[in-house]
Amino acid sequence: MTQRKSFGSDNHAGAHPAVLRAILDANSGDAIAYGADQWTERVTTGLRETFGADDAFLVLNGTGANVLGLSLLLRRHEAVICADSAHINTDECGAPERLLGTKLVTVPAPDGKLTPELIAERLSGRGNDHFAQPGAVAITQSTEFGTCYSLAELRKIADFCHVSDLRVYLDGARLANAAAYLDCPLAELAECADVLSFGGTKNGAICAEALIVMRPGLAADVPYLRKQQTQLTSKMRFVAAQFDALLQDDLWRASAAHANAMARRLAAGAATVPGVEIVYPVQANAVFARLDPKHIVALQQDWFFHVWDEQASIVRWMAAFDTTEADIDAFVASIRSSA
Amino acid sequence: MTQRKSFGSDNHAGAHPAVLRAILDANSGDAIAYGADQWTERVTTGLRETFGADDAFLVLNGTGANVLGLSLLLRRHEAVICADSAHINTDECGAPERLLGTKLVTVPAPDGKLTPELIAERLSGRGNDHFAQPGAVAITQSTEFGTCYSLAELRKIADFCHVSDLRVYLDGARLANAAAYLDCPLAELAECADVLSFGGTKNGAICAEALIVMRPGLAADVPYLRKQQTQLTSKMRFVAAQFDALLQDDLWRASAAHANAMARRLAAGAATVPGVEIVYPVQANAVFARLDPKHIVALQQDWFFHVWDEQASIVRWMAAFDTTEADIDAFVASIRSSA
Amino acid sequence: MTQRKSFGSDNHAGAHPAVLRAILDANSGDAIAYGADQWTERVTTGLRETFGADDAFLVLNGTGANVLGLSLLLRRHEAVICADSAHINTDECGAPERLLGTKLVTVPAPDGKLTPELIAERLSGRGNDHFAQPGAVAITQSTEFGTCYSLAELRKIADFCHVSDLRVYLDGARLANAAAYLDCPLAELAECADVLSFGGTKNGAICAEALIVMRPGLAADVPYLRKQQTQLTSKMRFVAAQFDALLQDDLWRASAAHANAMARRLAAGAATVPGVEIVYPVQANAVFARLDPKHIVALQQDWFFHVWDEQASIVRWMAAFDTTEADIDAFVASIRSSA
Amino acid sequence: MTQRKSFGSDNHAGAHPAVLRAILDANSGDAIAYGADQWTERVTTGLRETFGADDAFLVLNGTGANVLGLSLLLRRHEAVICADSAHINTDECGAPERLLGTKLVTVPAPDGKLTPELIAERLSGRGNDHFAQPGAVAITQSTEFGTCYSLAELRKIADFCHVSDLRVYLDGARLANAAAYLDCPLAELAECADVLSFGGTKNGAICAEALIVMRPGLAADVPYLRKQQTQLTSKMRFVAAQFDALLQDDLWRASAAHANAMARRLAAGAATVPGVEIVYPVQANAVFARLDPKHIVALQQDWFFHVWDEQASIVRWMAAFDTTEADIDAFVASIRSSA
Repeated sequence: MTQRKSFGSDNHAGAHPAVLRAILDANSGDAIAYGADQWTERVTTGLRETFGADDAFLVLNGTGANVLGLSLLLRRHEAVICADSAHINTDECGAPERLLGTKLVTVPAPDGKLTPELIAERLSGRGNDHFAQPGAVAITQSTEFGTCYSLAELRKIADFCHVSDLRVYLDGARLANAAAYLDCPLAELAECADVLSFGGTKNGAICAEALIVMRPGLAADVPYLRKQQTQLTSKMRFVAAQFDALLQDDLWRASAAHANAMARRLAAGAATVPGVEIVYPVQANAVFARLDPKHIVALQQDWFFHVWDEQASIVRWMAAFDTTEADIDAFVASIRSSA
Repeated sequence: MTQRKSFGSDNHAGAHPAVLRAILDANSGDAIAYGADQWTERVTTGLRETFGADDAFLVLNGTGANVLGLSLLLRRHEAVICADSAHINTDECGAPERLLGTKLVTVPAPDGKLTPELIAERLSGRGNDHFAQPGAVAITQSTEFGTCYSLAELRKIADFCHVSDLRVYLDGARLANAAAYLDCPLAELAECADVLSFGGTKNGAICAEALIVMRPGLAADVPYLRKQQTQLTSKMRFVAAQFDALLQDDLWRASAAHANAMARRLAAGAATVPGVEIVYPVQANAVFARLDPKHIVALQQDWFFHVWDEQASIVRWMAAFDTTEADIDAFVASIRSSA
Repeated sequence: MTQRKSFGSDNHAGAHPAVLRAILDANSGDAIAYGADQWTERVTTGLRETFGADDAFLVLNGTGANVLGLSLLLRRHEAVICADSAHINTDECGAPERLLGTKLVTVPAPDGKLTPELIAERLSGRGNDHFAQPGAVAITQSTEFGTCYSLAELRKIADFCHVSDLRVYLDGARLANAAAYLDCPLAELAECADVLSFGGTKNGAICAEALIVMRPGLAADVPYLRKQQTQLTSKMRFVAAQFDALLQDDLWRASAAHANAMARRLAAGAATVPGVEIVYPVQANAVFARLDPKHIVALQQDWFFHVWDEQASIVRWMAAFDTTEADIDAFVASIRSSA
Repeated sequence: MTQRKSFGSDNHAGAHPAVLRAILDANSGDAIAYGADQWTERVTTGLRETFGADDAFLVLNGTGANVLGLSLLLRRHEAVICADSAHINTDECGAPERLLGTKLVTVPAPDGKLTPELIAERLSGRGNDHFAQPGAVAITQSTEFGTCYSLAELRKIADFCHVSDLRVYLDGARLANAAAYLDCPLAELAECADVLSFGGTKNGAICAEALIVMRPGLAADVPYLRKQQTQLTSKMRFVAAQFDALLQDDLWRASAAHANAMARRLAAGAATVPGVEIVYPVQANAVFARLDPKHIVALQQDWFFHVWDEQASIVRWMAAFDTTEADIDAFVASIRSSA
């Protein structure tokens, strides 16, 4: 536990009070296990409507959602194209390769965003049985660098993939932050994807993610794949209740918008400190900054955050739903005083 | 949701109030994610001490614990010997085969319990590269039939496996019920195993299982395997807090003992009804009974429970930590009146 | 190497001279690798026509063919129903589980033959996400016990599977022997299957099996799956040449019919020896016999063969394309004299 | 089939006559299947002695050898570091990911050769359970670019890996060519590796590769893993016989030295043609050249070879054991005349 607000990650935050209240309320007597309960029904109905989706399923974490989602989109032998910075490539300890047996075909993408041109570079070996055959493209929204694809950028990718026999998976661990930044409905963000995840945990839940199946015909296998991939929980109502709270009056959007605003405030403040360079557009709730290594060390004495790229001396600061203006101002003051 | 107490499963119950209180208490400010928090440290230390274990890890569900545990014990090509009724064989949708690529070599075991003799039957092809090579034996305590291995039975299996180059995995989704029945410390139950699971969810948690590593030298790989197998949760403190509550003053034992007592009360009552036959010794919190099919149908109008074996007309009734004497008595009365 | 004819297996035999001649003939200058050569084209065309198949592919061994064939028929999470005596279950060291991650759902089948009734027994858990979901049925023709499905039996299985959303894989490592026994075209045998293997190695080749894809729409993925599963060979013409020889004037049928006849001769001779019981109908090229254990030991001093079931004191004697009447007569004489 | 000598690959060549003779000679009566024959014993003994190895095993192709070899060296969760140009990364259709579930952690290596420095770049995430954990380094000798590691370079890699808890796999599909170039014993080349492959197919065999296990303690699992990975062949003597021929009087070395010499002759001739640039040192049997795209098209009218990098306009020309000086001279004349 850290005394001062952590800027290490949005999952260092605890749970939103409304999420905990919903868990408490769900503890009323018995409920059929494994999702045949009223909370799960209400929430999956809500998610289907919110996303204009074919179906929606609850899972336990982001890696679980990503692996499950990809498993719906790949023929047995197919590979996945993704940015080299994609979470599935860099932060999941090789889970997609291990659980799906799939190759990740990576593309350097300086700002974490794929484009039709970058994807096309990885299609040259199609039809040759010696080369891994891409069957899906995985994008992240908002990206690992806190940037967001615009709706036009997403449409371009979707159109390209559609004509190229590539399915689209969208890792939406921080989709809420993108929807808040773009000020658009989740359904509009989801249109580009065949399957996507919608993250609850970084948005104030304790352990709740959703898998949203947009393309018809894919949902029937999910229950079996979810069970096999150990993402089925018995007392499902307690996961559903968390999403219930997030969906209520669009709490998810308010929380995400707040986190985004805190990140902007932090970036604006830090940018005025000599020697601090903000290296990516601050669109979601992450700030990437280049500082002198000594400056980083000094700052880490009092604050928790991660060095993202040691060689380039770049750090990542994350804001959460419960980061306050006072937290930001105190942190900016420290950045300034330790410069 | 069911109005009357469900006898369908111990995971139809909600959460123990102490578990929810612990979750609320853990929601105090920030905490480093993925287990580097004080709750996780305290609980894993507590589990290590309770079990006399080399190490302990928190995971999200029973299938996750089973697959992770087996993955520690098997060389890449090895198979697992288990009872044909084992949960890993019948109720996990093929997760061990899918995630580990391992063959399950099953043995008919009428009461769900393996013996050295039954295990030995599956060792005839050792050293022949055409035959699957067993590397581990998986047992369940308490078993899927609500029976318990005695400590002597466990020791025999452990001794046999030890001299036969077989590692022992124990599926302890309901280990608490066995410890309560045998009135022995968890450490004594765990001695037979190289790795075991300790179930929290069926004992009053909402989503919490533990993997207990007894044999030294196996724990180092767990963090990577847990992450790859999607069983790592970011806000780990909320899983740890649940176990914290269960370990406090041995709440787990009181809850399990109560559930066991309710099962015994149910069996005793039901056994007095003509045409009802209790088919397994009632040692943990499950009652298996043979009833006339029409009797089953009549009873299911008012009560929720599963038909275990349709051909043999056998049902399973489960008691939980929150099943009351009044629940049992009302259910027995219904069994009697619908006979 | 054994001086006397081995009755251990039909793969103890060497290569048919015509197969070796074809290999020598194929060694004429360069050829594009990996199957883009004239031999492969001619042979796969020939196999397509012979079987009335959608497509045909050359692979290197029976386990490779079985795993590749099943991989075409299973959705990612699905399981395979097979006889407990099936080669894929007992003799491939768990390759299907390892390479496909699939569960084998086994059925006791006393004579090695499945029936719609036996298959139906394994379908009770369909639609329940806790239970492995069968997607294919694997049968062996001729079976591991030297018996053959009749065409009517195959049709019944195919019809049942068709209406039950089950695909049919046929392990045809000894399909030639079945076709010879039933005196029918390969195409008629293949009609029941969506995918099947056609074994060359046990029929006089040195290392050649074919995967025959009957159902349209499955063949496109084979090249990639074959490569991933390490069953693609670079100098493919030398595998094709072997099949070229076997297909020439139906050499495969003559060789199989001869081996079958030798097995019948052996069974007829052995049956006259007191204390020898032939335990399965001798239809293909295998003879299973029950002998006194001392008799077995005595016989193994001079002859090589396998004890199939030590407890039941049953041995397996296999005839090959090059087993002679003199071999049989000498062996029968030994059986008699050592009785 | 191509009328003129193919420069497409060394596996476009047929079999060495001595290899075919050995196959014919091995066709003498029966032999126990799956490797329990005298040819296999003699050859594996020979390979053990030649390499100073702990054990040696015969397999069917290069991808099979690579996957099997890596499977010996990786703990269940570990990843493999390799050059981005490595055959396992670019030419095996994702087989390592599919069959082993391992992540390939790739390093750009301009000349196909790894160094301790390049390997070290991929070790930064060790001990962090979010990052793939490298357990082995895979190198290729000779490399995919026809270059060879010197013995000193190999030793440096081996030393670095040894102190870094990394095991070394060497893909030796063209190890013979490297041994010929370096004029050193195979054993000296193999010292750097824990496990390596030794390719027969590109050296004049029809279908034969060997897996050489240098490090003690790894060989016991090979038979089971080989069977599971479909690389066990029943009539093993015919694979063994091929290696027998190659090992006889070091035929392998003579063939490789000849192929290398033909590549050098080609490079020397082509280099004198204006507009032709040889892009890698010609050490083994491959020549990589940059030509004008129109020049390539003209040349491909009469000759078969692969464009390696279309954007960079680089082609690959391979020499084989049976490439003649006349083949080279005719090809060089065409290169000159079509320039």
